[in-house]
Amino acid sequence: MGDSGVGSNPYYWDYLRLDDLLGAQRLESARHGRPAHDEMLFIVVHQVYELWFKQILWELDGVLAAMAEPRLDDDRMGQVVRRLQRIVAIQPLLMAQLDVIETMTPLDFLDFRGYLAPASGFQSLQFRLIENKLGISPQRRARIGGMPYTAVLREDHRELLERSAREPNLLSLVEGWLARTPFLRFGSFDFWQVYRRAVEEVLAEERAAIDRNPHLGDDARAEQLARHRAYGESFAVLFDRDAWEARRASGERRLSHDAFLAALLISLYRDAPAFQLPFSLLTALVDIDEGFTAWRQRHALMAFRMIGGRVGTGGTSGHRYLEAAAERHSVFRDLFALSGFLLPTSKLPDLPADVKAQLGFRYQTTTG
Amino acid sequence: MGDSGVGSNPYYWDYLRLDDLLGAQRLESARHGRPAHDEMLFIVVHQVYELWFKQILWELDGVLAAMAEPRLDDDRMGQVVRRLQRIVAIQPLLMAQLDVIETMTPLDFLDFRGYLAPASGFQSLQFRLIENKLGISPQRRARIGGMPYTAVLREDHRELLERSAREPNLLSLVEGWLARTPFLRFGSFDFWQVYRRAVEEVLAEERAAIDRNPHLGDDARAEQLARHRAYGESFAVLFDRDAWEARRASGERRLSHDAFLAALLISLYRDAPAFQLPFSLLTALVDIDEGFTAWRQRHALMAFRMIGGRVGTGGTSGHRYLEAAAERHSVFRDLFALSGFLLPTSKLPDLPADVKAQLGFRYQTTTG
Amino acid sequence: MGDSGVGSNPYYWDYLRLDDLLGAQRLESARHGRPAHDEMLFIVVHQVYELWFKQILWELDGVLAAMAEPRLDDDRMGQVVRRLQRIVAIQPLLMAQLDVIETMTPLDFLDFRGYLAPASGFQSLQFRLIENKLGISPQRRARIGGMPYTAVLREDHRELLERSAREPNLLSLVEGWLARTPFLRFGSFDFWQVYRRAVEEVLAEERAAIDRNPHLGDDARAEQLARHRAYGESFAVLFDRDAWEARRASGERRLSHDAFLAALLISLYRDAPAFQLPFSLLTALVDIDEGFTAWRQRHALMAFRMIGGRVGTGGTSGHRYLEAAAERHSVFRDLFALSGFLLPTSKLPDLPADVKAQLGFRYQTTTG
Amino acid sequence: MGDSGVGSNPYYWDYLRLDDLLGAQRLESARHGRPAHDEMLFIVVHQVYELWFKQILWELDGVLAAMAEPRLDDDRMGQVVRRLQRIVAIQPLLMAQLDVIETMTPLDFLDFRGYLAPASGFQSLQFRLIENKLGISPQRRARIGGMPYTAVLREDHRELLERSAREPNLLSLVEGWLARTPFLRFGSFDFWQVYRRAVEEVLAEERAAIDRNPHLGDDARAEQLARHRAYGESFAVLFDRDAWEARRASGERRLSHDAFLAALLISLYRDAPAFQLPFSLLTALVDIDEGFTAWRQRHALMAFRMIGGRVGTGGTSGHRYLEAAAERHSVFRDLFALSGFLLPTSKLPDLPADVKAQLGFRYQTTTG
Repeated sequence: MGDSGVGSNPYYWDYLRLDDLLGAQRLESARHGRPAHDEMLFIVVHQVYELWFKQILWELDGVLAAMAEPRLDDDRMGQVVRRLQRIVAIQPLLMAQLDVIETMTPLDFLDFRGYLAPASGFQSLQFRLIENKLGISPQRRARIGGMPYTAVLREDHRELLERSAREPNLLSLVEGWLARTPFLRFGSFDFWQVYRRAVEEVLAEERAAIDRNPHLGDDARAEQLARHRAYGESFAVLFDRDAWEARRASGERRLSHDAFLAALLISLYRDAPAFQLPFSLLTALVDIDEGFTAWRQRHALMAFRMIGGRVGTGGTSGHRYLEAAAERHSVFRDLFALSGFLLPTSKLPDLPADVKAQLGFRYQTTTG
Repeated sequence: MGDSGVGSNPYYWDYLRLDDLLGAQRLESARHGRPAHDEMLFIVVHQVYELWFKQILWELDGVLAAMAEPRLDDDRMGQVVRRLQRIVAIQPLLMAQLDVIETMTPLDFLDFRGYLAPASGFQSLQFRLIENKLGISPQRRARIGGMPYTAVLREDHRELLERSAREPNLLSLVEGWLARTPFLRFGSFDFWQVYRRAVEEVLAEERAAIDRNPHLGDDARAEQLARHRAYGESFAVLFDRDAWEARRASGERRLSHDAFLAALLISLYRDAPAFQLPFSLLTALVDIDEGFTAWRQRHALMAFRMIGGRVGTGGTSGHRYLEAAAERHSVFRDLFALSGFLLPTSKLPDLPADVKAQLGFRYQTTTG
Repeated sequence: MGDSGVGSNPYYWDYLRLDDLLGAQRLESARHGRPAHDEMLFIVVHQVYELWFKQILWELDGVLAAMAEPRLDDDRMGQVVRRLQRIVAIQPLLMAQLDVIETMTPLDFLDFRGYLAPASGFQSLQFRLIENKLGISPQRRARIGGMPYTAVLREDHRELLERSAREPNLLSLVEGWLARTPFLRFGSFDFWQVYRRAVEEVLAEERAAIDRNPHLGDDARAEQLARHRAYGESFAVLFDRDAWEARRASGERRLSHDAFLAALLISLYRDAPAFQLPFSLLTALVDIDEGFTAWRQRHALMAFRMIGGRVGTGGTSGHRYLEAAAERHSVFRDLFALSGFLLPTSKLPDLPADVKAQLGFRYQTTTG
Repeated sequence: MGDSGVGSNPYYWDYLRLDDLLGAQRLESARHGRPAHDEMLFIVVHQVYELWFKQILWELDGVLAAMAEPRLDDDRMGQVVRRLQRIVAIQPLLMAQLDVIETMTPLDFLDFRGYLAPASGFQSLQFRLIENKLGISPQRRARIGGMPYTAVLREDHRELLERSAREPNLLSLVEGWLARTPFLRFGSFDFWQVYRRAVEEVLAEERAAIDRNPHLGDDARAEQLARHRAYGESFAVLFDRDAWEARRASGERRLSHDAFLAALLISLYRDAPAFQLPFSLLTALVDIDEGFTAWRQRHALMAFRMIGGRVGTGGTSGHRYLEAAAERHSVFRDLFALSGFLLPTSKLPDLPADVKAQLGFRYQTTTG
């Protein structure tokens, strides 16, 4: 505020730096002498996106800092979860803005599209930083016109991105936090042995149901058995640390065996007091991942509608890239996969009383 | 782009002036040595609001310019309607952003609230300009802490607002455009005489239904008759130019008698080709009015939740002001009132063939 | 499924009872020989509302049952909160459906409106049950055309409602749960004494700031001092159980003194593990209350737009009733008021180590 | 109402047939003696979907009837467009309901999932009818577990679907309506010749810009030239009726050459009065198509999250099917492609005055 001379009495306009903000819309079409009314919308929508990206990075950086500490204090978990949930709350706005862009018809877009090339959303440094900080797999990144995603960026931005790709990210930090959980071994109680027996029982029941089903023809029965075998094999991998880690090495899985087991445990017993916030955290990660995937898909549809399969201002087919990114840029796919390993609560082993007590609040165990 | 040295090859970052945009978030709490994480959200949300307000003003200015011309070409009507509909499309974003603000708890807000006073949303020059350009009634404006709405603004902003209040606004231009419609008299066909007979028939039927209804007790019948009389009187005013204009002089109505009749005609025969876009225009005006009213109401709820009845940073009770504004700042209330004068299509007089032809396309009447 | 003959192999159509569901749209306009296309929309929208109301009642009943138990197990708190949050998640659909209704123009509505009277949304038994189960104040209920809200309902529905009004509701159960919290006294630590000192310090600082402010004229200073006094008095009531309970007796407050203090404590220390879910619960209650209020307000706007101030099919002015209900039917207003009693975290007393330990998980205190 | 004994005074409960509607939720889990709380949500959400599907079919049938008439009166166009736009307005609700389903965790779903098989959304007769009435390509339909989509349906439903697939659908009726447009030839004015010259000019300019660009390396230039050639070839097909129809025969295009040219003309001159509603109609078709595609994609994400890659209750991998359907079930893809053939307004030939007059209203040409 100092520079506005208002001293200790902030004025709304100065506080929000509206001279800078509202002076930042310069129409390329006007610079070329053919002002196109709708270019203002194009600029404003993209600027709003960048403001939200800045906010998302702000929350993400706060979360990464908290998760990078050797021990995440219980008191800070609430804050971490709230910040992730705020990102989830921002995502519907990113989506809804596409509806506003679509009030611009392709014909209106054409009035200034030519002036923008090669500028394009591919060059959004902040969105790429978000992807890297979430922990997108560098191997799986979609290429842009056959080139690495950084090729379209300015040198200094490229360096920022390359650095961010080397730093700890949300996936790696969550992985470490899960793997460190003290609950994978509970003294004498071997949870995984109990869980495994329950799984075997469930598998046997399903197998019997297929065998017994009088309505199935031979082909249908064979197909159901094949699926049942595949289901059984997914558990076999879960119970075999080496098999799991081999899949992780191949890129099929991204969480370590320990981390995945911890996430599964949390999902199975989410109502134990000590697991409630961790479960909210895992849920928020899935929400964020789903939100960005859905946004990329809708964005691809919008791009297709706007330029009809032609090459975008970034020199490549925007909607094809976005479709590929929607499929390949998911970060927390392993957490989506958790639901394939859950058991009905009726089959779920009860935790022993001493384990339950450990997962409860201290005031309860002393008063209870 | 010139100043970024990129010449004729715009780069996304420069095109959107992201140095200015992303450098415009300065936390007052940090300046006071107590950085509050959530102040970033507070700033970003308000900046996004201001960007959308700029966009709304951009569309509004385009519409005002088109409507201010002596004759609004049919070819430009489509554009006018699309621009108003774009404002309608932006409004859900204004609403949805309140959900994002509410991810900030009152306790988090308190960490920096004290640093902001007296800055407040009351000082949003752009939103006040929108209100004036829509044609808000100066007499009905809610006061802020007992003072005129301009009192909290900087001198130069106050002048801008006072000037905008004197210029033609959307209400006055729509009023003029409606009053100029060539369709209030169709040669020898006196529409209003026919319509009036239909109204009298409807009123008589309703009256008879009340009289005949065996289920009504005396009190209920008296009440229904009172309502029926009030309904009849509203039509009496509609048919009496002087009575209408007296109500307009008192501020109860804002459209002139001619303009209101034109709007009613358009609403009754909206499917005639020549009325289709005018009907879309009237609908968009109602949508915009409803959108801002709903936003003020939700905003009031949010403010109440955030500061619990305390005085806001602007030095007055934010939620009370917003409640008052929601009630008093409606501009196109007369258009909402149109629905009270519609007739069921079964009672609606058919337009004579020559009138219908005038409202149709030329190619049809030549080929048909 | 038995009655459909499918036995143990449910078929989608039968499982969802689509014969009943999709056969339940009978147009009154068709029965009168003048089928109106848009009556289908009118019916379907209202049926969808009733389905969501059933779902909300289902969740609410689950929550009431859990909260009515003498002791709410920590393990069940997660479930209670999830069910309340599901209601919050349903509310945006209730709101968004209003946009769909508004695709029907007032003229289209007029084609069948006359056939519906006196049926009206005022007669929605389920919505009234929701209001009663939330704990709406019977004294504050808006009247319908000068009569009690039950007057427009069928005898059996009226009895159901009167019974529901006598049963424990969410407000009373939450009140009891808050008042029972073991945390209002922590052994030798007198929280409220410490908090009160902090409040006095904050009030003194604010007072000094007003006195010192050189920019204030006499009137403005007097006004600010008056507000400051009112703020101080609100705390005086908070610290005086009898004064509080007097306001409760008058209907101004609905939570008991103990319950309100517990809610305040939870809000101030929401990140303590034992307070995290209780804080989510309080937040969900505020969200639900705000959601219904916002819906009533938007509904009032829609009704006004649709019938333009005329009397609705229920025989009274729909939008006036809805406006009154929006203002009067709030249940958890005391929770909104909490934010007026929060302190900045910098002023907030630290909890003593033994108190913090009690609010933590057992496994932490044994390992830590 | 007759059967409810209320006679001519409808009561809300009876009018909406709430006995049928609210009695139609029967939990399979309860029938098996293990009531699962969340099955209610599952049922209600699906029932709401089916109610909206009924409404969409209602609008669609109205539109199909109007479009099937030999001549679509201008007065009815407004109604047709409004009904399509109502479908567009319903689609966000379909989407938003997915958020509500996701308040059910995979673990909660597991509590009753086993009881539902083989019932599944694949068996939604109404949704399949919508697809057929829109005009989905039978050849492109995704298969369910290797079988035709009708295989999972009951005999009578299968027949209904097969019949609907043989009837005129929205695509075929729109195709016919476009092909019949009187505007493909305007007397002596050969629009397509003028347009073709404009295209050639644009192509030549783009080619020159690539040749001249000093920043391009050899590879990049070669790539841009290849793209430019492909762009030119797409126009070659547009100008060659036989080439176009060959692509149509192969399934790559679905609109006839004449219909596509008419749609292009409407898109280019959308602001001519006679083209305004046709343009709104084309826009609504694109909106509907995009809306269903986006919904299938989000639905696939939700299914993946809920069952983690396992086989759904319909006996096949739900999310894989939905992904395939999202890609293959688009109906109006040709209308998306229109934007690839637009020209900047600065290049667009002006229509001759007599043509413009034909596209205007009669009252204008007589008074102007």
